[in-house]
This record gives sequence, structure tokens and C-alpha cells, in this order.
Amino acid sequence: MEEIDFKWPNGFFADGIHAGLRKKRLDMGWVVSEVPAQSAGVYTTNQFQAAPTKLTKETINKKHELQAIIMNSAVANSCTGIEGTENAHEEQALVASKLGIDKDLVGVASTGVIGIQLPMDKIKQGLAELQKTKNFKVTEAVLTTDTHSKTISVSFEVFGKTCTISGFCKGSGMIKPNMATMLGFVVTDAKVAGQKLQETLVELTNETFNQITVDGDTSTNDMVVVMANGQAMQDEPELSEGSEYEIFKAALKHVLGFLAKEIARDGEGATKLVEANVNGAHSKEDAQHVAKAIVGSNLVKAALFGEDANWGRIIDAIGSTNAKLKIDSVDIALNKTKIVEHSLGLDFDEEALKEKLKSDEIIIDVELNNGDFKGQAWGCDLTYKYVQINASYRS
Amino acid sequence: MEEIDFKWPNGFFADGIHAGLRKKRLDMGWVVSEVPAQSAGVYTTNQFQAAPTKLTKETINKKHELQAIIMNSAVANSCTGIEGTENAHEEQALVASKLGIDKDLVGVASTGVIGIQLPMDKIKQGLAELQKTKNFKVTEAVLTTDTHSKTISVSFEVFGKTCTISGFCKGSGMIKPNMATMLGFVVTDAKVAGQKLQETLVELTNETFNQITVDGDTSTNDMVVVMANGQAMQDEPELSEGSEYEIFKAALKHVLGFLAKEIARDGEGATKLVEANVNGAHSKEDAQHVAKAIVGSNLVKAALFGEDANWGRIIDAIGSTNAKLKIDSVDIALNKTKIVEHSLGLDFDEEALKEKLKSDEIIIDVELNNGDFKGQAWGCDLTYKYVQINASYRS
Repeated sequence: MEEIDFKWPNGFFADGIHAGLRKKRLDMGWVVSEVPAQSAGVYTTNQFQAAPTKLTKETINKKHELQAIIMNSAVANSCTGIEGTENAHEEQALVASKLGIDKDLVGVASTGVIGIQLPMDKIKQGLAELQKTKNFKVTEAVLTTDTHSKTISVSFEVFGKTCTISGFCKGSGMIKPNMATMLGFVVTDAKVAGQKLQETLVELTNETFNQITVDGDTSTNDMVVVMANGQAMQDEPELSEGSEYEIFKAALKHVLGFLAKEIARDGEGATKLVEANVNGAHSKEDAQHVAKAIVGSNLVKAALFGEDANWGRIIDAIGSTNAKLKIDSVDIALNKTKIVEHSLGLDFDEEALKEKLKSDEIIIDVELNNGDFKGQAWGCDLTYKYVQINASYRS
Repeated sequence: MEEIDFKWPNGFFADGIHAGLRKKRLDMGWVVSEVPAQSAGVYTTNQFQAAPTKLTKETINKKHELQAIIMNSAVANSCTGIEGTENAHEEQALVASKLGIDKDLVGVASTGVIGIQLPMDKIKQGLAELQKTKNFKVTEAVLTTDTHSKTISVSFEVFGKTCTISGFCKGSGMIKPNMATMLGFVVTDAKVAGQKLQETLVELTNETFNQITVDGDTSTNDMVVVMANGQAMQDEPELSEGSEYEIFKAALKHVLGFLAKEIARDGEGATKLVEANVNGAHSKEDAQHVAKAIVGSNLVKAALFGEDANWGRIIDAIGSTNAKLKIDSVDIALNKTKIVEHSLGLDFDEEALKEKLKSDEIIIDVELNNGDFKGQAWGCDLTYKYVQINASYRS
């Protein structure tokens, strides 16, 4: 498996345009497969699930097949009641008729302001403009306050065929004025059954997208969708088990992990990516829970913004979980400098470590010495800019 | 029951002094009853419980009796290993011998920097200076970065006797450099059995101290201790049930609630007290969970600092809980202006509401329309100052 320049896998097309939902920037796009693709999705756990999120979930759950997904930024179509639900359904139907396919093969995704209805006239005009191209404009059209587009492609070989997995996402926390955030789309020309893809996506999401936090909020629109159209493996059997499947799974995990970290790194106001690596946990759940508690602590986040080796706060975040701990056996290192051993502070060169903490990546290694399980989580620092972004009046 | 000027109840004495743990400010003090007092305590759920917290818990759990509690600021005696445990025990023994009482009648409390040992020489000198006075210096001696001392006294009548409950606390979130926070002490001359007092304290804490959040962190030293010496009711029966007990319980709840709100209001960097009142919940737990999720959301906190009526974030915080919700039936009001009805945004005068949000108290009323249960929680806004305080290098 190797990272390659971003490209659309065999049999996938896309486009992005300016539909007038935003002043100038691209705000609408789609991804289309030339044939129905086995598909899987994971969705926000927020009880106020937006209309497009709910519709895409229902659609994928029918046959785990999609051929196209339409997406827009600026308007989240969340907390929009019956009208919002009808608009999502109409958009799905319009895309289906334009492509001449069943509406149950069309996914719908929106991100943007909560509580505003989709302007269907603009959506219709925009849809008329969308073409089946190989351009990357859709990766920009989904952005809201992200500072840059987030894309990755990897290639790998199975059964002697070279397959590609490409992914893009938008994120960066719930943002002003009241943004519904975090959309991820992954397309591949590998051949995988939808149900199997679903199981794998759920498993890998728990180790990637579910282990990032910018401010602990779960948006109403979060979703990650994977489409596999098999076009690079037409004469080959489906990937379903064994070493060939593991190659695919490793490549997919790499793509999901990369995109998740990109979202954390681009968290609003963030100046640093923070990675917590927890080892020696009593269970996988404990390891992931502890890692996420550390990167989720406002105190740890603010201290790292201040480049302060404030281990008391890391200990505090660990202890605030219900993970099984040996209270006197916790070791902590910051960017490879050990600062806590057996739960006691070590003497270390504050100034030298402060220098290391100027890095834009902070690695917190925690050894719980209470088992064999590992977990990771990613977040960012808490900055003045975060407060500024989130305090500023909707404008 | 009425609030009165702060005073020590009958048979309680106190003092506060400068033991040299801090540069200038008072840093050590005690509260002493002339007779053993029935006592109860609640303690941090953080797994890294500080030595004094652990010792006080063990001591109270023996007979639910205390006659004195010694306290210091500046040094939390947390994450201090065996030496820290021995120091806490020595301090307890020293207080007992100075007062000529059993050490099992002495509680110990510390707050301050995590990971530093108590300077026992200064503790011993300080202890020698402490007197049994009626001054209020101990209410200052426990403060760390609190902007002011937090005290309250109430009086009420039972069996024709006037009783007093007085409380003081320190708080304001986990603060630089790595502070162990939130100590609460309540003393009364009412007569209540320790076990009953313990049950009542646990019940009331769940509705007061456990419903405040400054930054979601639970410190290693948090504790609330109540001592009841019965000196105002010497010839009366113990309060244990019926209307007389309800009078006492209401007074105690008022004291605990007042102190909890004072901690939220004085949260680091805070400019506003935020109160969430949740009604119409399916259960008491749901109501309290939703209320706490709202005041705990960074996005809500930052928006309120910006005086932004950003209801999408409140909906989002509500939906992120696992409370039973009727998704289309949530109403929200900010400082009495209704902005959401049936989970849909209402048209409201943004400028007029923005004026109201300039208040230093923000009331968020939420009606879930899904049951008969209520819950409240208190927090504060998220400000530049919070980040500044928590980012600044330990100094």
C-alpha cells in the first residue's frame, strides 16, 4: 500500500460548482460511479439527526448500494422539520432522474448552518450544471470554515490488480454560526460486498473518526460514506477474507486515519495536532477511552497551546475516566521526554521540553502498566482563536 | 429559613494564618467544634485521589464523627506517593494532640499544586499558631486562584430552637499550574445523626455540586464535608424525619446550592454565570444530564461569552445526550426570550436578545415536553481569559 497523488478511482466521476448558496466559493458537488457501488455508512449519534443524514442512512441500509452522492455546504438542512425532509427527498429524486437511475442509489449530504431550509431553486440550478468529470472541485465544495481541502489516495495490489482508495472530508468542529460538521467520503475501485464493507467501516471508524475530538460536540450531520464499485477487479472475486482482504482493510484504515487526523489538525483555532498513545491498558475500550479523555480535556488542550508540560492535568484526565488503572503505575512522556513515572513527577529540563512543545505536533505517550491493550486519539490545542471563532456573532 | 450575615454556629471555632506555603496570603486554617460533631463527606470520583482526601474519607467513614478539620492551600499533596500519605497522617496526628482528641476525629484537606510534597516544617509552625477563634480567616486561607472568598450562613427554627448552617468553599476549576480544586465545608449547630447526614449530603450533592461544571475536569482533591455538633439543640431530639427534618434539609440544600453557584460564577476567566433549567424530562437523570450537557458545551459557553443567541448549539448539546427525547418537541428560551419551539427556530429580535445576553447571568430554559421531571445545572462562559489562565506557563 502506498500513498499516491489524489485521483478518482476507476469508474468514479465527480464535479463541484457554485450554486449560489455561498457568496463566491464552490458550494455544491457530487460523486458518481458508472455502475452501482457496494456502499456503507456511519452516521452521527446526535439524536437531532439532520434530514439528509437520516435519508442517506435509510437509503444505504436498504441494499448497501449507492451510485451517486450529492452534497452541498452553507446549509445543513438540520432542525428544518417536515419541509427539510421533503427537500432532501426531492433532491435525491432529482439526482436520480438526471442520472436515469433508481433514487435508492442516491445519497444526500449537507453541511452548513443549522435551522435554515435548502433553497431548492438554487439546488435545482446547481444540479443542472453538474457534470461527470474527473476534476476535484467537489473536495472544495464541501468545505465550510476548513482552512484547506483534505484529500488522500492510496493504491494497493490484490489478485494482481492495482486498486485505489481515495477519500476526502470536511470538518473542524462545530463552528460559527452553528455549523453542522464532519463529512467524509471514500471511494474505491476494489470489489467488496456492501455488508462486509459496513462491518469493516464500523470497526475502523471506532479507531479513527470516533477517536478525534475538537470540542467534544457531535454534530447533527456527521457521516462517513464508503463506495466500492469493483471496477479495478471486474474479473476477480470479491474481497471478503484472508490476506487479500487484510491488504484492503489496512489501506482503508490508513485513509480513514489520515482524514480523521486532518480534521483534528484543522480544528478551529488549532495551532497543534495532539496525539495520545495509550499502552498497557486492561482493555481496548479502556485504552481508547483514556486516550480520548486526554485529548478532550480543555486543561490539557490549553496547556499545550501554552507549551506547558503540565502533567498534573494529564494524570487528572486519566483518573477522571472509569478505566481500570493501577494508580501508582502510570508513566507519561511528552514528545518522547518522560515526565511521569509510577504516577510521580520526574525532574526534567523544563526549558528543553518547552522547546520541544513548540512543535506543531504533540505526542502524549501514556503507559498504564495494567494490560496489553493500546488505543490512540487525536485532538488539537485550545486557543484564543477558538474562543474568538466561537464567540463571534453570527455573521 | 433566612440568609443571615456569615457567622460560626454555636460551638464552632476557626482560624486562618500565613504558614509560608504562599508568598503573602493566608494559606492554612482550621475549623474546630467544642464537642465531636456528627459528620458526612462526599469526595472526588477521580481515581487519583489525593492523600488528604483519601484519609478524610477513611476517617469519616469510621464513625461519621469529626471534631476538627485542618486545611491548607498552595500544596495539594496529590500524586505524592507514600511520603504524601505519611504527611497527611502526621498532620492529622499533630492536630489531634494539639486539641487533645482522638485522631479519628480530625479531617485533613489540601488544595494547590499537584505533585509537590507538603513542607511539614511550615505545617508544624503554622499549626502551633492556630487558635480557636471566631474569625473568618480560614475562608480566605483555602482560596487558590478564586477571585474572592465564598461564604453563606442561614438560620432556621426547629423545635423552637434557632439553628445556623454556615458554609464556605473554594473552587473555580482546575487552574494553573495544575491545581487541585473545589473544597466545601459546612458546619451547623443542628442535631443530626451522621449516617442520616451522609445520606442527605449525597442526595443534595447530586442536585448541587455535581451539577456544576467549569471545564468538565474532576480534580484529585474535591471534597465537601458537613459537621453537625447539635449545640443549638442540646435538649432536643435528633432531626431524622418529618417536617422538622425537611426544614433542615431545605436549609442545607440552599447552602450547598449557593456555594455550588458561587464556584460556577467564579470559574476561571468567567464573565457570566450560566444556569440551565430543564423541564418536561422523562426522568430526573435525563433532566440533570441534559442540563449539564448544555452548560458543559464549549460551543454554548463560547457563544454566550460572545452574547450570541446560538440555539443550534444548545439543540446540539441536548441531542448529544442519551436522554429520552421527543425530537420534534423541544422548546428553548434564553433569558426568558423563546427562540426555539417544537425544535424549530423562531423569529426573534436578535438585537433585543443580544442586549439581554449582556447580563452577567444567563438563564437557559429548556422544555423537553416528554415527562414531568426537572433538572438544573450551572456553569460559566468560555473566555479568552480562560485560555490565557490555562495556557500560561506555571509561574
